[in-house]
Amino acid sequence: MNEQTRNSSRSGGRAARRAARATALPEHLRPIRSGMEGGTLKVLTQTQIERIHEAALTALETIGLADAPQSGIDYLVAAGCTLGDDGRIRFPRALVEDTIAKANRSITLHSRDGKSDLELSGNRVHYGTAGAAVSMVDVHGQEYRDSTLQDLHDASRICEQLENIHFVQRPMVCRDIADNLEMDLNTVYATTCGTFKHIGTSFTEPSHVAPAIEMLHMIAGGEDKWRERPFMSNSNCFVVPPMKFATESCEVMEECIKAGMPVLLLSAGMAGATAPSTVAGAIAQATAECLAGLVYVNAVKPGAPAIFGTWPFGLDLRTGAMSIGSGEQALLTAGCAQMHHFYDLPGGAAAGASDAKLPDMQAGWEQMCSNVMAGLSGLNMVYEAAGMHASLLGFCHESLILSDDLIGQAQRCVRGIEVSDETLALDQMAEVCLGGPGHYLGTSATLGRMQADYVYPTFGDRSSPKEWVELGKPGLIEKAINRKEEILAIPSPARFDALLDAEIRSRFNIYLPA
Amino acid sequence: MNEQTRNSSRSGGRAARRAARATALPEHLRPIRSGMEGGTLKVLTQTQIERIHEAALTALETIGLADAPQSGIDYLVAAGCTLGDDGRIRFPRALVEDTIAKANRSITLHSRDGKSDLELSGNRVHYGTAGAAVSMVDVHGQEYRDSTLQDLHDASRICEQLENIHFVQRPMVCRDIADNLEMDLNTVYATTCGTFKHIGTSFTEPSHVAPAIEMLHMIAGGEDKWRERPFMSNSNCFVVPPMKFATESCEVMEECIKAGMPVLLLSAGMAGATAPSTVAGAIAQATAECLAGLVYVNAVKPGAPAIFGTWPFGLDLRTGAMSIGSGEQALLTAGCAQMHHFYDLPGGAAAGASDAKLPDMQAGWEQMCSNVMAGLSGLNMVYEAAGMHASLLGFCHESLILSDDLIGQAQRCVRGIEVSDETLALDQMAEVCLGGPGHYLGTSATLGRMQADYVYPTFGDRSSPKEWVELGKPGLIEKAINRKEEILAIPSPARFDALLDAEIRSRFNIYLPA
Repeated sequence: MNEQTRNSSRSGGRAARRAARATALPEHLRPIRSGMEGGTLKVLTQTQIERIHEAALTALETIGLADAPQSGIDYLVAAGCTLGDDGRIRFPRALVEDTIAKANRSITLHSRDGKSDLELSGNRVHYGTAGAAVSMVDVHGQEYRDSTLQDLHDASRICEQLENIHFVQRPMVCRDIADNLEMDLNTVYATTCGTFKHIGTSFTEPSHVAPAIEMLHMIAGGEDKWRERPFMSNSNCFVVPPMKFATESCEVMEECIKAGMPVLLLSAGMAGATAPSTVAGAIAQATAECLAGLVYVNAVKPGAPAIFGTWPFGLDLRTGAMSIGSGEQALLTAGCAQMHHFYDLPGGAAAGASDAKLPDMQAGWEQMCSNVMAGLSGLNMVYEAAGMHASLLGFCHESLILSDDLIGQAQRCVRGIEVSDETLALDQMAEVCLGGPGHYLGTSATLGRMQADYVYPTFGDRSSPKEWVELGKPGLIEKAINRKEEILAIPSPARFDALLDAEIRSRFNIYLPA
Repeated sequence: MNEQTRNSSRSGGRAARRAARATALPEHLRPIRSGMEGGTLKVLTQTQIERIHEAALTALETIGLADAPQSGIDYLVAAGCTLGDDGRIRFPRALVEDTIAKANRSITLHSRDGKSDLELSGNRVHYGTAGAAVSMVDVHGQEYRDSTLQDLHDASRICEQLENIHFVQRPMVCRDIADNLEMDLNTVYATTCGTFKHIGTSFTEPSHVAPAIEMLHMIAGGEDKWRERPFMSNSNCFVVPPMKFATESCEVMEECIKAGMPVLLLSAGMAGATAPSTVAGAIAQATAECLAGLVYVNAVKPGAPAIFGTWPFGLDLRTGAMSIGSGEQALLTAGCAQMHHFYDLPGGAAAGASDAKLPDMQAGWEQMCSNVMAGLSGLNMVYEAAGMHASLLGFCHESLILSDDLIGQAQRCVRGIEVSDETLALDQMAEVCLGGPGHYLGTSATLGRMQADYVYPTFGDRSSPKEWVELGKPGLIEKAINRKEEILAIPSPARFDALLDAEIRSRFNIYLPA
């Protein structure tokens, strides 16, 4: 198709596009959605999966984990673990296998309004933010600055508007709040009044859980309502790899379990530093650590909702820098997804983050590589999927907005190929070729599926070079800046009503302006 | 890991990095290479593949193809096809199945110097350029301008230096040469003296093949040497989808087969325009068309080397614009790769091109999405994998250079995960955890694999924000511009010796300055 014919077909195209955009698709006709089934990518064979499982069981039985808090030792020994003279808790393989068999295999992560609940099971895929960035990427000045509470709130509000961001785990720490308790509580506030979607957060100390839960009860409208539909989960780094419990985080975990908050058992080893440098070894160690966490959770409360959070990270071994955007990272995450399915447990891992400092071409290729592979592997929770730069140190609102497009295309790949008599289209082929028009343009079969089958980008540019010049060479970043300003110009739909807000503010020291 | 500790580990890291770069890895230790085996991604099930195959056979038997040249009609009817009153050639399924069984299942695409031959079989993956862009992307002025012979020569020279570009199919047309014969001949010249790697090209008319072959004989050092190691193949659009032979291109194909030149049977239907709008339908039609081509090739010369070139393209049905960077495109290509394996035939398809006008974040995510999925699917020839923008209308040298990094990471994913006692690293885990240092940094196991297991980017930035500022915020595009200038500043290693060059120039009208 030469440029001439491409352009002549455009003038009518623009009107059609406007019309198509004006009609929102009903949910059941949307080409992509939250919780689609992946699983077509299998970077590990069944034999390899079983070897990793065996290695993990052996590691738990022979090496075990150090540094459990006393409460954890009590729970674990009561469950059947042994405490060695070296202070390490060791896990008999029968106990681990028994726990896997009895654990909760299907978790609902609730949204606050019930409209975007996540059903974690099988190969169902959900994308969202996560992390603990300490900086914001300012795309105007190409600069990094400290991240603030307002940035976090804004990120939540932006996520609320992005169809392909399915949950909002706190992506950054609020560096403008020096006191850790106040930071934790303001994090709960700023995310919750920014989005209805399911939220993940962390707590610095065990004592922070109770006041946070108090705030969540207020927001939910009472403890019973909270326990019925807990719309926030705890992202919990319960281990310090290799093979040590994170003592305080374990205590946080116990508090959260008791308060009815789902727990993400997050093992974040770095291959070559705190985990073996090999992809298989890093997955094996993370698997062992998360199995230890699973035994722990089920010892505290059988069947308590826990996400198997094997998050091994790649390192650049020449420099010690993280390489979150690498092919090795994509393999680590895809392999972990298969371990989750092997156990038939809800799981999550990190994908979609970039080492690039700015939302540039490198950011695009790195974010897509692990995001699409995570989805194709059927990872339930794809954490860090959007907005994350500088190897998790910087978060970028504009990049977050662009990620919605990127993840949309990844989700289209996850949805896969439908093969049926209708889609094989032999009848159409005969009709078009044998005395027909010789093309499929504008046929009813083509028009009938043009919305349900295709994911159209919001920011991705598909104009011809000529049209692009006529449009003034619109830049991707500029479009994202404009969209951000649009979103933040309207009040948050998820904000609390005045009465509740006043109540929260009278009980807690809320830093966000009313 | 906070920024403090990250940065303090860097000063030693820089020296290590320099040292690591100074030592080139021996070929057998390289973490990635040309021809690695993919196949972990299966977007189609076996049942779906068989249904597509059935649909293709039925289409060939009942619809057939129109517009074969008289020579083709003669070959095909002699082989067992029927010529209908409607002028369409129809293919009995027994003939098609018989051809599949007898066709050449393993092709070597030769390099000119024998150092980078491509062995096309099984799931072996190779990435390279392709296309017929009419413009060059000028990243300095963010402008599109006509592509020239010099641009083509420069692209070949750049490809020669990029480790992860395994072949060089002509990516652009030389718009500064008005005469088609002279354009075709200068295309052969400019690519061949730019790279030793295998080259693909097209011919506008059947009569252009003979003089091109004459030039190739001169370059090879005689017809026997050419026929022994043909280092150029013919990219041949032998069909005009839906289901029509491209009369003249078929005649070109016949000439090339006779001259010992491998043929890429390229079926480039556009889903929703010249192919059914559904992914399955577009794959089925392309499969039918390429099977027709395969019968044709084998009727001309049994066992002649042919690449099964199902290249269905995605369209944006709202506008009629191509959507080469879409998720639908990645699925089309990944599905085609599985059809090639089903037939056990060497195959190729398009991936890695972008709709973006510039090498921006969109370009990154689009190029990675289909490139990594093509590789994971085990596609033998990933065409259009580098440098291609504006839905195939524009080629960009700087983007080509950056693609080398991008494809490197995709290849790392194709290589996959090695699971063995050594990589599972249970012994290391025990050593590190039980009385050991508590980390894997600098252990002999870690150091021993840091080069063979990891793909380090050339342009991708992994510095910390602090280091990045100290380095003056190096831009990706600027780094690519510098590399381009470096490459083009030295004489082409693939240039012809003075005698041969003079001989070619005395016989042909070569536009490239000597």
